[in-house]
Amino acid sequence: MSRPVDKYGKLGDAAFSRMEKVNADLFLLTYGSLVTQLLKDMEDAEAVNAQLDKMGYNIGLRLIDEFLAKSGVTACQDFRETAEVVAKVGLRMFLGVGAEVVMWNKEMTACSLVLAENPLAEYVELPANLVNKLWYSNLLCGVIRGCLEQLQLRVECRFEKDALQGDDQTMIRLELKEVLHEEYDDDD
Amino acid sequence: MSRPVDKYGKLGDAAFSRMEKVNADLFLLTYGSLVTQLLKDMEDAEAVNAQLDKMGYNIGLRLIDEFLAKSGVTACQDFRETAEVVAKVGLRMFLGVGAEVVMWNKEMTACSLVLAENPLAEYVELPANLVNKLWYSNLLCGVIRGCLEQLQLRVECRFEKDALQGDDQTMIRLELKEVLHEEYDDDD
Repeated sequence: MSRPVDKYGKLGDAAFSRMEKVNADLFLLTYGSLVTQLLKDMEDAEAVNAQLDKMGYNIGLRLIDEFLAKSGVTACQDFRETAEVVAKVGLRMFLGVGAEVVMWNKEMTACSLVLAENPLAEYVELPANLVNKLWYSNLLCGVIRGCLEQLQLRVECRFEKDALQGDDQTMIRLELKEVLHEEYDDDD
Repeated sequence: MSRPVDKYGKLGDAAFSRMEKVNADLFLLTYGSLVTQLLKDMEDAEAVNAQLDKMGYNIGLRLIDEFLAKSGVTACQDFRETAEVVAKVGLRMFLGVGAEVVMWNKEMTACSLVLAENPLAEYVELPANLVNKLWYSNLLCGVIRGCLEQLQLRVECRFEKDALQGDDQTMIRLELKEVLHEEYDDDD
């Protein structure tokens, strides 16, 4: 049996090496400035989570083009494969680190992505009043949601654990809600 | 005569290759979200320029540690050398692209950095109402200012041309204002 995990791991590595890149610390500090600014604007952590998700969604809508052009991935057969590609190719290609896919539900429509590292949150410490409230890296969930929606997959994507909150790992829950169909105009 | 430009170009390349990196498009789209958020909050482009500079300054205060730890650069002899290092090593190491140093004043205290590319602003188009008002990439000036201040050099740093504004190139003016001296407490 072929091992899709290894295949995608290699694709992810190759795609990352081809990408234009910038320093990870410059990125994480810039992202930190963004989160800080939102906290100043909104005060309520819930609203910041939502805004980060929305910003990520808009980024995802655009980033998918680069993914399709440069990842070397062709169409996925099912959601299981899609999740592997998100974890091994997508995250690796853009963040430089991949994830493991675990905890599938019986229907194979929902799984969790475990991030070994999180380049958005290195050196970050949450102030006590934001623990269990702010999902600091929520932009990521939005990016995944935006990318997949461009591929006609409506998903829910949210953090379920975050090492920043003191959890033992950083984990994103990814759930397929609907396969969208492109609408064609009768006149075409 | 040795050619410092080549020496620093090589140092910059080597340092960049050693850095942890993320995808440049993810960075530029995240930066775009930050600028958009500030424009929404502040409306006035002047205030956004100032806030981007301030954020960059705070980033620079932290980024200098990574520069000193990983760039391989030792103490600079004069401001001319400092400017070369900023252009060839610092910018290259963090943004992935270097700059040329031009237009020195007679006193050798002010020069301009010409950026061949600007990874913060690729694909960006300024809306007409922001042309000649918003310095979109002003975070960069703040980063340079913050880094140099940690090295006891108080500088002014500002965009003088930006391809986003329709200028023929992207150019940052860098001017040494004061060499600071660390203050020691008499009791020490």
